[in-house]
Amino acid sequence: MPRMVRVALDAMGGESAPRVPVRAAREAVAQDQDLRVLLVGRRDDLEEILEEDDATRRRLEIVSASQTVAMDESPVRAVRRKPDSSIVVGLRLQREEEADAFVSAGSTGAIMAASHLVLGPLPGVDRPAVAAVFPTASSPVLVLDVGATVGARPGHLHQFAHLGAIYFRDLMGAEDPRVGLLNVGEEAEKGGDVVQETHRLLAADPGLRFVGNVEGDRIIEGDCDVLVSDGFAGNVLLKFYESVAGLIAELAGEDSAPRRQPGMKRILEVLDYTKHGGAPLLGVDGVSVVCHGASPSRAVRNALGLAARCVRSGMVRDLARDLNELAIRTVGEQGGT
Amino acid sequence: MPRMVRVALDAMGGESAPRVPVRAAREAVAQDQDLRVLLVGRRDDLEEILEEDDATRRRLEIVSASQTVAMDESPVRAVRRKPDSSIVVGLRLQREEEADAFVSAGSTGAIMAASHLVLGPLPGVDRPAVAAVFPTASSPVLVLDVGATVGARPGHLHQFAHLGAIYFRDLMGAEDPRVGLLNVGEEAEKGGDVVQETHRLLAADPGLRFVGNVEGDRIIEGDCDVLVSDGFAGNVLLKFYESVAGLIAELAGEDSAPRRQPGMKRILEVLDYTKHGGAPLLGVDGVSVVCHGASPSRAVRNALGLAARCVRSGMVRDLARDLNELAIRTVGEQGGT
Repeated sequence: MPRMVRVALDAMGGESAPRVPVRAAREAVAQDQDLRVLLVGRRDDLEEILEEDDATRRRLEIVSASQTVAMDESPVRAVRRKPDSSIVVGLRLQREEEADAFVSAGSTGAIMAASHLVLGPLPGVDRPAVAAVFPTASSPVLVLDVGATVGARPGHLHQFAHLGAIYFRDLMGAEDPRVGLLNVGEEAEKGGDVVQETHRLLAADPGLRFVGNVEGDRIIEGDCDVLVSDGFAGNVLLKFYESVAGLIAELAGEDSAPRRQPGMKRILEVLDYTKHGGAPLLGVDGVSVVCHGASPSRAVRNALGLAARCVRSGMVRDLARDLNELAIRTVGEQGGT
Repeated sequence: MPRMVRVALDAMGGESAPRVPVRAAREAVAQDQDLRVLLVGRRDDLEEILEEDDATRRRLEIVSASQTVAMDESPVRAVRRKPDSSIVVGLRLQREEEADAFVSAGSTGAIMAASHLVLGPLPGVDRPAVAAVFPTASSPVLVLDVGATVGARPGHLHQFAHLGAIYFRDLMGAEDPRVGLLNVGEEAEKGGDVVQETHRLLAADPGLRFVGNVEGDRIIEGDCDVLVSDGFAGNVLLKFYESVAGLIAELAGEDSAPRRQPGMKRILEVLDYTKHGGAPLLGVDGVSVVCHGASPSRAVRNALGLAARCVRSGMVRDLARDLNELAIRTVGEQGGT
């Protein structure tokens, strides 16, 4: 039996807030009897939308936050200047143990900055990573980082490999996930200095099932389960993939004959990122799930479900243990040379 | 009337050589009355395939090259050790003014190394770039670099912007193409040091129509005509795009009902990179077009057509003039500060 999970949801985040987050919360608690959602935002706005006679109402709670962070605000400054923003208040609930996880479709930069500030980094983690699921024809591939850390050093990418492997194991049920390194060629000496040194670190690590370099055309072929990348290339790839899905859907036409074809439906399902909903920020001491600003309620609902699964799996505890071991091993090796 | 163009074709390059290159050459000269193709490779192998009674035979010529470069050989070493390889011989024809251009589906690394060695760099160009056309729902976008230069500095990326803009103008007929910079956000201060400094250089250059940063999801939206990128991200994106096209084609099924649907046919056409054939190596003193190793004859045929258009447009002369002006301006500015 899954235990009761309390997820704080940024009710003011995303392009259609608070309407979309509230609908997503209602749908999520209807699906999961052991989920409570704390809607964080302006009480008046939220009370107006919530219907008292709704069967799910008793597992939805409003937590007041008077401020909101705009999408175009400087993230770090916004987080510092707006201590009563829905993002900061929502994350603080977790630190104060009134919530187990946080979900937001607001400014990704602000969510990352506030998560770092409020939850703090996990011991042994120097940089956080956002992990995104890339749907493929077979099993999905977890790509990290997709935008939290641009200009990652080999040591950071080594930590990403561990963050991704533990997350994949705990959330996607593969005992010993295959870890690949995004590169421009298969051979160990391909790419620049950073990826070459990262290749060396990953290949020498007995705690990882490293399958080597993975080129751009091998990602959706499923050559690995976890793909390690700098935040620059990962971000560009993720956004590009989303836009290709959009183009295909557009060309197929809304509710058109080709769209209803079985083959076509499968394609759109494979490419439809809204199904996957949220991307976890890994490396912070808690659960923080980031959604696309344009997320429909289905995506936010799925992100709430993902946040609950993160909590139930004990992912943060497992990450802390694994990264701590990596830090001890790395220090030991450096001391021995 | 287009003047006669002589293209040297590496008849030993690609997965199905020499069959595919020979067929492509035959098709290309049949389409273009003013094209001659010099088939470079082992004479015996080529004579066996060529049919004497073919109407196109008199515009196909065999040039002997006894060696071939394997796909897995170290490019620089192979080029040095195999002076009679089809790649080196084919490029040498251009330097000796017996050919106007070179096309190969062989080892990309070896083609790049040999082009640099045999043709030499254009004055004012520090690093070459491979430019690839990304099909979109509207007009195609030229992305460069897609793999020649990993770890490009801001000055290199600035040169890429000029190489791409002139190529786009000469080959794709847009007088003043919009140049974008691949980045993880719209704002000038996004990305790492290299892209930030590149943004500054491009924005300050009166010789470019710079439209700012372009994110991964805006590429196929057509926000720019020319997209400047380091070879790492560009290579990963290109290969990923090709594989997505492959996945879609696979899911749709060979000759299936969905594939024959008008909407679906349009999607596959948009994504079908074989239509585009070859990618030019820009920044060398000549025309060198690289094809995918798995290119079907249609792609190689199109690459031969592209090479002929490069020659007829006077692209190399225009690039030399533009890059020379950029070099003079850059030196002048550095002297003035």
